[in-house]
Amino acid sequence: MNKGRLFVISGPSGVGKGTIVKKILETEHPVELSVSATTRAPREGEEEGRDYFFVTNEEFEERIANKGFLEYAHVHEHYYGTPKVPVEKALSEGKDIILEIDVQGAMQVKESFDNGVYIFILPPSIDVLRDRIMGRGTETEHSLEVRLGKALEEIRYTGKYDYSVVNDDLEKATEDVIGIMRAEHFRILDAEEIIGKYEEETK
Amino acid sequence: MNKGRLFVISGPSGVGKGTIVKKILETEHPVELSVSATTRAPREGEEEGRDYFFVTNEEFEERIANKGFLEYAHVHEHYYGTPKVPVEKALSEGKDIILEIDVQGAMQVKESFDNGVYIFILPPSIDVLRDRIMGRGTETEHSLEVRLGKALEEIRYTGKYDYSVVNDDLEKATEDVIGIMRAEHFRILDAEEIIGKYEEETK
Repeated sequence: MNKGRLFVISGPSGVGKGTIVKKILETEHPVELSVSATTRAPREGEEEGRDYFFVTNEEFEERIANKGFLEYAHVHEHYYGTPKVPVEKALSEGKDIILEIDVQGAMQVKESFDNGVYIFILPPSIDVLRDRIMGRGTETEHSLEVRLGKALEEIRYTGKYDYSVVNDDLEKATEDVIGIMRAEHFRILDAEEIIGKYEEETK
Repeated sequence: MNKGRLFVISGPSGVGKGTIVKKILETEHPVELSVSATTRAPREGEEEGRDYFFVTNEEFEERIANKGFLEYAHVHEHYYGTPKVPVEKALSEGKDIILEIDVQGAMQVKESFDNGVYIFILPPSIDVLRDRIMGRGTETEHSLEVRLGKALEEIRYTGKYDYSVVNDDLEKATEDVIGIMRAEHFRILDAEEIIGKYEEETK
């Protein structure tokens, strides 16, 4: 059986990566979304194991010590992280996993996991990104500029990724990412295993 | 404009790589087949520039000296080779190029060309390959065994390739290769160029 692949999807805030991931999960492409662990309290409607794994501070720090995370961060006094075990289990069952994560997290995953596929979602332009963030109507002029500056900082990490997809048209960007996911299943990761199959036959 | 990509397609003789390439050329995927140069005489129905570029021995050897080939070989007293110039022209015009070539040729291309994509076409099994070659009805028992031995030798180069596609069903294998070609257009080859575009905008 083919092993699954880990797809790490990043991109600046406001670029629409969450929407792309949601659309991919709605298609028939067999893939699971990685569920994060967090120490913050569940919010109304959030479900254990679907939205997050809710754990105590002590449990989280123990798991850090045991190298149990692909990546983690401490934000606003709470921990957030990607537990290794469920990811490795799904991959060994042949399922693809999507990890939607910021650049810092993606760089951590790169150090702790081999053979991940790193996809960066780009806006058509900074102007379009500005319009999209403004459209949400939740930003002041100052916070908008801060976010755009941060977006550019993140875009500077593009070279650390394998693929870039411009989210101009949502449907197309979704298809593009799925196309990459499909193609990556043909990548040769273990040539010896392939060769061995044919050699075995001719013995 | 995006530059085109060079796709090198190899696989053992009899695996059906020529048929896959022919089918890809019949689809809407924008791609050209690389045309080889040769010193052998044109055969009935062969057309200059479509089937081969027919050149003299002297011209061929001069072009070797000028590093004008991505790869070349000397077979049955004739030269065969892939001229660099038409490939580079097509790529710079944004066209994809397919190079259908044996393993030895592919390894030469790897040394003289960056950013090629190497796809290896595999048979479902050696048994199936035997049946396919026998089906052609042109082999003696001995020459069949020689060819299968050579096929296994070639399969041992799988690890030098980026992708492997099993040609079990011709339609599916063709789609798989086209999928790889599409996905490779999202590969990040020049991150600085991408980043520069966004930085320019915010100046």
